[in-house]
Amino acid sequence: MKYYAGVDLGGTNTKIGLLDKSGKILIKETIKTFSGKGMETTLKRIWETIEKLMAEKKINKEKIGGIGIGIPGPVINQEIVAFFANFDWEANINISKAMEKISGVPTKLENDVNMIAIGESKFGAGKGSASSITVALGTGVGGGIVVNSKLISGISGAGGEIGHMKLVENGKLCGCGQRGCFETYASATGVIREAKSRLAINKNNLLYKSLEGNMEKLEAKDVFDCAKAGDEFSMEIVNYVGNYLGMGIGNLLNIINPEIIILSGGVALAGEILLDVVTEKLKQYALPVTLVNLEIKLGELGNDAGIKGGIALFL
Amino acid sequence: MKYYAGVDLGGTNTKIGLLDKSGKILIKETIKTFSGKGMETTLKRIWETIEKLMAEKKINKEKIGGIGIGIPGPVINQEIVAFFANFDWEANINISKAMEKISGVPTKLENDVNMIAIGESKFGAGKGSASSITVALGTGVGGGIVVNSKLISGISGAGGEIGHMKLVENGKLCGCGQRGCFETYASATGVIREAKSRLAINKNNLLYKSLEGNMEKLEAKDVFDCAKAGDEFSMEIVNYVGNYLGMGIGNLLNIINPEIIILSGGVALAGEILLDVVTEKLKQYALPVTLVNLEIKLGELGNDAGIKGGIALFL
Repeated sequence: MKYYAGVDLGGTNTKIGLLDKSGKILIKETIKTFSGKGMETTLKRIWETIEKLMAEKKINKEKIGGIGIGIPGPVINQEIVAFFANFDWEANINISKAMEKISGVPTKLENDVNMIAIGESKFGAGKGSASSITVALGTGVGGGIVVNSKLISGISGAGGEIGHMKLVENGKLCGCGQRGCFETYASATGVIREAKSRLAINKNNLLYKSLEGNMEKLEAKDVFDCAKAGDEFSMEIVNYVGNYLGMGIGNLLNIINPEIIILSGGVALAGEILLDVVTEKLKQYALPVTLVNLEIKLGELGNDAGIKGGIALFL
Repeated sequence: MKYYAGVDLGGTNTKIGLLDKSGKILIKETIKTFSGKGMETTLKRIWETIEKLMAEKKINKEKIGGIGIGIPGPVINQEIVAFFANFDWEANINISKAMEKISGVPTKLENDVNMIAIGESKFGAGKGSASSITVALGTGVGGGIVVNSKLISGISGAGGEIGHMKLVENGKLCGCGQRGCFETYASATGVIREAKSRLAINKNNLLYKSLEGNMEKLEAKDVFDCAKAGDEFSMEIVNYVGNYLGMGIGNLLNIINPEIIILSGGVALAGEILLDVVTEKLKQYALPVTLVNLEIKLGELGNDAGIKGGIALFL
C-alpha cells in the first residue's frame, strides 16, 4: 500500500496531510507558511512536517508514492511555477525538482484552485464523473476544469482562469487591470462592492440596519442572510449576482458541456437562495441540451479539497 | 498499411474521401446528400461511394481501418446523434451502429465542426500541438476544442458550442432563441446584420455604392473588401466585429489557455485586416500570460478539414 502527501500552500497557512489511495486523510497538520524566509526554507519546513506525520503514523519513506502541492499561481507542466501571486519568490522556478531534491520523493504541482477541482472531481462532489467544472466563489472567482478525468491546466498554467472571462464590455474594473471580468460580479468582493454602492443611496433596508452604521464590517454573508430574512433590497443584490453567475456558468456549459458544476468557496455557502436564482437564469444563457443531464452541486470536501487534490495528481 | 474513410455529411452535399494514416487523401468524391430519402438509404449510398473509391484505388475492405463521419448536430460518445440540425431523421439514433451494420467497418461520429477542429489539429494549422481551439466563422460561429490531443465533445455532444457563449447581456437575438450570443456579433450573418443596420442611416460610403442599390446581395466579404479599399464606414464595422471576436476568443484563452487558435470559415478569409483588430483587442480581454506563447493561425485544410478529421478519430 502506497501513501501520498497533499500540500495546500497558502499565503498565510499551509495545510499538509498524509492520505491513502482512497483519498482518506490519515493525519494532517497546518503550519505557518512564512514565505518570507524563501522558497528553499519553506519547502524544507514542509518536508520536515511530512516526515513528522510519517513518523507518527509509522510510515517509512519507501511507502510514500508522491507529494502533490497546490500553488497560489499558474503552474506549467505540473512542475514549474510561472509566478507566485503573493510571494516574492523567483518566477519560472521548477518547484517540483527543488522538492524532489529535498525529499527524494516524486513531486507534482498544480494551481491551488485546480487542486481543489481535481480533489472534488475524484473524491468529492464529482466522484464517478469524467467531466466537472469547479467554480470557486471566494475573494475572487477561480475555476478548475476536468475533462476525460484530467485537468485542463493550460499551456501557461492559466487553464480554468474562469474568473477573468469577460461578461460585460467595458464593465467593472477588475484587480487584473481589465474590465468586466466574471469575478468583479460574482465573487464575495463583487457582492460587497455592489451592496456598498447600493447602500450609499438606499438606507431603508434590513441590511443597513444590521450593520449598525459600520459599513466596513459588511460581508457577502450579511447580504445572503438578510435576503433569507426577507429583505427585498438584499434579495435584489442576490438576483443581480445570481444573474452574472448564471451567465458565466452558462458560458462554461456551452463551451465544455460537463456532467457536473461544483460550487465551492464562501459565496457558495449562501446555498439554496443563490442556487435557485442561478438555476433559473441558466435557462436564458445555456443551450437547453447542456442542461438536460447536468448536476449542480455544492463542494463536499471543504478545506480538505486541496490536500485531497494532492493525491489525485498521482492516480 | 491501413486506410480510412472520412465523410463530411452536409445539408446539401456529402464529401467522401479515402485517406492513409498520414492524413493524405488518396481519392475523394462529393455526392448529393438527399437526406429526405431517409437515414438508412443515405448511409447505404455513402457506403456504396466508399466501395467505389476503394475499387478505383484497388484497396480491399480488410484494409479499411474505420469510417469517420462528421454530423451536423450534437454527437454523444462518438456514436449517437442527439438531433440533426437540418434533417428530419429521428433523434437519439446510433448512426455508428447503423453504418457498421451496412458496411462491416468500425464507424465513429463527431459533430461536423469538431471534425474540422480535430482535422486541423492533427494534419493542419495545429499539427504538432497538443491543444488548439478552432473557431469556425461562417453563417454561425462554431468551435472545436482539442486538449491533451483529444476533442472536448461534451456529455451531450455540445462541447465547443462557443457560438452561443453570451458576450452581451440582453444583446442581439440569436437563432437559438437566446440573446447576446457570440455568433450574433462575429459570424458572417452578424457582419451583414450590422452592416445593413448601419447602411439604413448612412449611405455616403463605398460599401453602399458598391452594392448599386441592391442591399440583398450584401455579403460579409463586401464589408471586408471595402474596408481594405479604405472605406472608413466599412472599417468601423470591421472594428465592431473584431472587438467581439477578441472578447470571445479572449474568454476561450482564459478558460482553456491553448497553444493555438485556428480561425477557419468564410469570415476568416478576411485575413490580416480582421486579424490585426482581433490581436489588438485581445490585450484588453485575455490575461497576458495566455498570450505569451499563443499562435493565431488561419486554417490550412480548407474544405478537406472535415474529411481529414474522419481519420483523426481513429489515431
